[in-house]
Amino acid sequence: MVPQVEEHLDTLKERLLVMGGMAEEQVRLVIAALVERDTQLAARVQRSDQPLNDLHVEIDQRCVRLIALHQPVAIDLRAVLAAVKIDTDLERVGDLAVNIAEAVQRYLHHPPLLALHYIPRMADLAQQMLRDALDAYVRHDIPLAEQVLSADDVVDALKAQASVDLIPLMQGSPATIEPALDLILIARHLERIADHATNIAEGVIYMVSARDVRHHGQPG
Amino acid sequence: MVPQVEEHLDTLKERLLVMGGMAEEQVRLVIAALVERDTQLAARVQRSDQPLNDLHVEIDQRCVRLIALHQPVAIDLRAVLAAVKIDTDLERVGDLAVNIAEAVQRYLHHPPLLALHYIPRMADLAQQMLRDALDAYVRHDIPLAEQVLSADDVVDALKAQASVDLIPLMQGSPATIEPALDLILIARHLERIADHATNIAEGVIYMVSARDVRHHGQPG
Repeated sequence: MVPQVEEHLDTLKERLLVMGGMAEEQVRLVIAALVERDTQLAARVQRSDQPLNDLHVEIDQRCVRLIALHQPVAIDLRAVLAAVKIDTDLERVGDLAVNIAEAVQRYLHHPPLLALHYIPRMADLAQQMLRDALDAYVRHDIPLAEQVLSADDVVDALKAQASVDLIPLMQGSPATIEPALDLILIARHLERIADHATNIAEGVIYMVSARDVRHHGQPG
Repeated sequence: MVPQVEEHLDTLKERLLVMGGMAEEQVRLVIAALVERDTQLAARVQRSDQPLNDLHVEIDQRCVRLIALHQPVAIDLRAVLAAVKIDTDLERVGDLAVNIAEAVQRYLHHPPLLALHYIPRMADLAQQMLRDALDAYVRHDIPLAEQVLSADDVVDALKAQASVDLIPLMQGSPATIEPALDLILIARHLERIADHATNIAEGVIYMVSARDVRHHGQPG
């Protein structure tokens, strides 16, 4: 029985990696659309979240079947329950990429603003965090998961700095208010994507160690 | 064995209702702080998300134990996996109440803005949606879950209207930019709270019917 559980867990991990790759790609494309001022690319991101949604449903169903048919225990059971949470996180990353695409469409009606440069840096970090969080899940790698938690602070600082730069701009020139608002929203969406990576990383630490770091390390 | 599963599921539901009540109360208090311009109350909300975090951890652990020791199947197993997702949603509602409290603290440094009236309406709806989504979970009530899905459209419309009202205000008077930004953020946070209620309701429909409505009803 045990090798069978292992096999199903491997497939589950593989499918989560596929889903993570798709979520990352949506983030990459929508930020490319922003930087290259490509509204068609933004529109493509808006239309292409269905594969992520399908994987969300598929992975949930895999988890139900895996538990029902193979009764995993201990770390294997925690890995399946982590997967149930991870697919939700990744699906929401896809939703956030769509939200960013909507803001990009509006933003591109205006001339570019200087504070834009924060956004690609935040996006690169968020994508790296997603990749690392999923690798940490697959490899049961606690140090890598902890690295994701620290990266989140950098993303938060960049988001705060973007607002600090944008508010005086808006106050000085009413024409910048709408595009600046959209940049602030995009920065917030990216911060939330980083938060989803953080959630995954915290789940990995709990899964591996049965130690809960999600809320300042109460006993696990 | 079966009655034992039932008993544990009842306790699980009870704990989720307690957690839902706490999340709702945080939302109620933070909006009261905004409307009554009570910074102390906002500060209290900022400090009091620990009980929600503790319940998040506790309910996750209950779910692991329930599956490991009692091997629930079919709808019972789906109910436990739904609980794993619901406790995450409720924990994030608590985080969002803290985010709102931070925005309220900043907002209260400025004179009140007219568009404020959208916020309490959105908050009332979001709280009702949370309550209904959890009742739908406990009672396996699909029509009530569907009601939550429709209410979400109303919240989205109110959020959009708040921005429509606030942008010309910001353009006409630079002094309103900072407080208006905070109202826009608060409206977004409330929209996300309503989204969490929607997620719970979609999970209930899947749990009861094994039919997935989360992404336009692919086969469940």
